[in-house]
Amino acid sequence: MKIALTLAFTSLSLMASSLSTQATEAGLKPIPASKSALMKLINDPRNNITDAKTELGKKLYFDPRLSKSGIISCNTCHNLSEGGDDGVPAAIGHKWAMNPHHLNSPTVYNAVFFDAQFWDGRAKDLEEQAQGPIQAHPEMAATQEHVADTVNSMPEYVAEFKKAYGKDVKIDFVKVTDTIGLFERTLVTPSAYDDYLNGNEKALNAKQKEGLKTFLDKGCVSCHTGISLGQSMNAFNVTATYKYQDVGDFKGDANGMVKVPTLRNITQTAPYFHNGQVWSLKAAIVEMGRIQLGAEITDAEATSIEEFLKALDGRKPALTLPILPASSATTPKPDMN
Amino acid sequence: MKIALTLAFTSLSLMASSLSTQATEAGLKPIPASKSALMKLINDPRNNITDAKTELGKKLYFDPRLSKSGIISCNTCHNLSEGGDDGVPAAIGHKWAMNPHHLNSPTVYNAVFFDAQFWDGRAKDLEEQAQGPIQAHPEMAATQEHVADTVNSMPEYVAEFKKAYGKDVKIDFVKVTDTIGLFERTLVTPSAYDDYLNGNEKALNAKQKEGLKTFLDKGCVSCHTGISLGQSMNAFNVTATYKYQDVGDFKGDANGMVKVPTLRNITQTAPYFHNGQVWSLKAAIVEMGRIQLGAEITDAEATSIEEFLKALDGRKPALTLPILPASSATTPKPDMN
Repeated sequence: MKIALTLAFTSLSLMASSLSTQATEAGLKPIPASKSALMKLINDPRNNITDAKTELGKKLYFDPRLSKSGIISCNTCHNLSEGGDDGVPAAIGHKWAMNPHHLNSPTVYNAVFFDAQFWDGRAKDLEEQAQGPIQAHPEMAATQEHVADTVNSMPEYVAEFKKAYGKDVKIDFVKVTDTIGLFERTLVTPSAYDDYLNGNEKALNAKQKEGLKTFLDKGCVSCHTGISLGQSMNAFNVTATYKYQDVGDFKGDANGMVKVPTLRNITQTAPYFHNGQVWSLKAAIVEMGRIQLGAEITDAEATSIEEFLKALDGRKPALTLPILPASSATTPKPDMN
Repeated sequence: MKIALTLAFTSLSLMASSLSTQATEAGLKPIPASKSALMKLINDPRNNITDAKTELGKKLYFDPRLSKSGIISCNTCHNLSEGGDDGVPAAIGHKWAMNPHHLNSPTVYNAVFFDAQFWDGRAKDLEEQAQGPIQAHPEMAATQEHVADTVNSMPEYVAEFKKAYGKDVKIDFVKVTDTIGLFERTLVTPSAYDDYLNGNEKALNAKQKEGLKTFLDKGCVSCHTGISLGQSMNAFNVTATYKYQDVGDFKGDANGMVKVPTLRNITQTAPYFHNGQVWSLKAAIVEMGRIQLGAEITDAEATSIEEFLKALDGRKPALTLPILPASSATTPKPDMN
């Protein structure tokens, strides 16, 4: 009896160990457990992360006065209290306009791990990405001047920029969006899955391990790979047979390529797909198998994969709610039109 | 020399002391320095404040899924990162609709100190007030069923309600809004002004003391009184000669009475007046003197009063950003129409 138990444990342990190796060999990578390794990974090569910069970036991220109306902030569509997104099919912005391509807001959590941003990958990093929605008319609808004038109008902001970048800092649109991007780099959520790949065999339960195996076996990992469990750009087959392909006009980039979204925190970022038309995670798994892999994923397999995906729910950074500087007499007034 | 200095100090101290007494005699009251006295003051007599309830209330306050669209929360118009309001003349809500009476969103900070809520005082407390904007079509536009169904659809919320209220709790619309109200009761911001009235003579600088004296002498205190430096209901003369009286159709309650807004954090809650038409605090001071007191307030006096008002900028509670439960398969879907 004692021998049998020992054998059983050994066999389980071997299986688990080989699964972890199998996952790594298939291209999956954990968020590093060591803080210094993580910082090296998320740092902006042009602009070192410091607390002064990220605290300032957090304020700017939450400040609705950067928008034309004064009531839409980065956090409106990339809500850090939710899954880092807005939970609606397509982003709603200035004057209640919907994203013109009916595109779903991607999560900002772990977006740092991509080397292309936006669904068509047109921005190379978070700093460049941050310039887009602030200016887009159906989103925050602001001019570069509005953003710079707003920030420069508040002495507290000016003092914080000086503290973060030195007294000669020029606070322009790019400096503001760079600072927002720097804050976004810190929005990383390590999960049980990472603990497992980092060596803690017990971090995943039996169902989650089985789900990871199914995930690998069915080939999901061929697109959802690396540290993001996504991929910068990959062939976009969705248009071929996707039931909701006519919702919006998005067809990928010029080469028909699309950014493969991260699966981290995927249980919190419904609705799914580029146009946010599928609400059920299990249905999304089955659809992706059919469309991208040409594979039939059974209900049992989808359930199993979903169990694994739950292990990607991450530990979000504990953020204190920022307290924003008061507007001054020269702060640009909100414009609802 | 020594004697002269001593005399000077005594005289200053006497002056300060008598100013503080004068303020108290005129009706001003500080936020109590003792936590137990404050808790007694802000507690809901029907429903004791506990950490479990206020943590839950905070989540609900920040949860946009309580709204019909899924993108508007209490915090959208009563932004705790700003002055507890939205910084725009009139609230913008569902489908970008403006408040139909062109009413400015009042701050939620220190609103607990009023015994009537809304500009026309139609709600008796924060719990009753919270029921309004959630249902109002130009604001969050939700039905009571939507709110109850949304909260009940998420097991984490249900567990938190049980933890807060006991396992037999019935989670309905009123229980949700009561819990939001309870959280709002804690949004109190003690300031240098309170420290001064609580006995710290040095809490106000010379200009602020002079401003307080001007505030008392000019009669501002006749309406801006008590702990809120406001008043539940008072005669609304604004319609008589207010330059912007035609913006919106608000004329006070049935008796022409209006809630006198708090002056706490007033430097952060522009634009001013019920229809948010005045951006400059100094201009608002002069206008109020003219309209409500029939008094001419000189530029120097307005500057002096403004110095005092700066001492009402409070210390906001340090809040961690709430992390909201993920939607489930039964969570009502957002509806943008």
